[in-house]
Amino acid sequence: MKIMVGGTFDPLHDGHKRLLSRSFQLAGPKGTVIIGLTSDRFASQKVHPVRPYEKRKEELTRFIEESGFQAAWSVEPLEDRFGSALKIDFDALIVSEETLPVAMEINTLRRKEGRRKVDIHQITCVLADDGRWISSTRIYRGEIDPHGRVIG
Amino acid sequence: MKIMVGGTFDPLHDGHKRLLSRSFQLAGPKGTVIIGLTSDRFASQKVHPVRPYEKRKEELTRFIEESGFQAAWSVEPLEDRFGSALKIDFDALIVSEETLPVAMEINTLRRKEGRRKVDIHQITCVLADDGRWISSTRIYRGEIDPHGRVIG
Repeated sequence: MKIMVGGTFDPLHDGHKRLLSRSFQLAGPKGTVIIGLTSDRFASQKVHPVRPYEKRKEELTRFIEESGFQAAWSVEPLEDRFGSALKIDFDALIVSEETLPVAMEINTLRRKEGRRKVDIHQITCVLADDGRWISSTRIYRGEIDPHGRVIG
Repeated sequence: MKIMVGGTFDPLHDGHKRLLSRSFQLAGPKGTVIIGLTSDRFASQKVHPVRPYEKRKEELTRFIEESGFQAAWSVEPLEDRFGSALKIDFDALIVSEETLPVAMEINTLRRKEGRRKVDIHQITCVLADDGRWISSTRIYRGEIDPHGRVIG
């Protein structure tokens, strides 16, 4: 299967790793995973600073290579919420609980433009040790580390 | 992975087959698929007549056996919208576009009862030749056959 997944991935935390692992699992060894990585311009709308695109891509690439996934994959810059998800044919979109509404919006827009809808796989967020979601914002604030361990 | 999926499956049409195939694919060869099959009492709320539980289970079983899926599987009666999805631990719920709201409700209720949420995989409906969804109601009305071919 041809899978699309997106994010800012800064820093790459256990929630992201779950999202990516599930994407590769679903794609299967002969499938493809397209990872939309927010561009620096798009990421600048975040409430916290984000490392440059190339740095984030490097960390993402290292994780994928070390994981030994078999599917083909590529990283492409995401300039808005949709990226190429409105324009190309693929099978399934993998999203977190936070981004499910974007996936629903993508299907509505695809249908309007005469494209077929895609499957939507919503992966539950990974919980930190304190029972709340692991998120980049919380890591940036210094509340938790990328594995969800509470700091301090 | 341990997967749950549910339905009335009467008759078993191409949309159901897609839902079941994706469930087994996601479970993986060492996983488990639990299929909730609406009980005769629960199914009697439908707008059209439904064949008896045992007949529906027979057709479901034949499809699964002929498909050569590798995961372990079982069929259990569904007496309401949730079945055992609120009570047991599993990884992902596979739903159609029509039943996504039930899946969201299940996660909300699980969380309230202190259980962890599950992943939700929404499979797009299969379209009939006329571009509308394949559904049991449409088959019952004689508009289409179980493969989505327009009748008459």
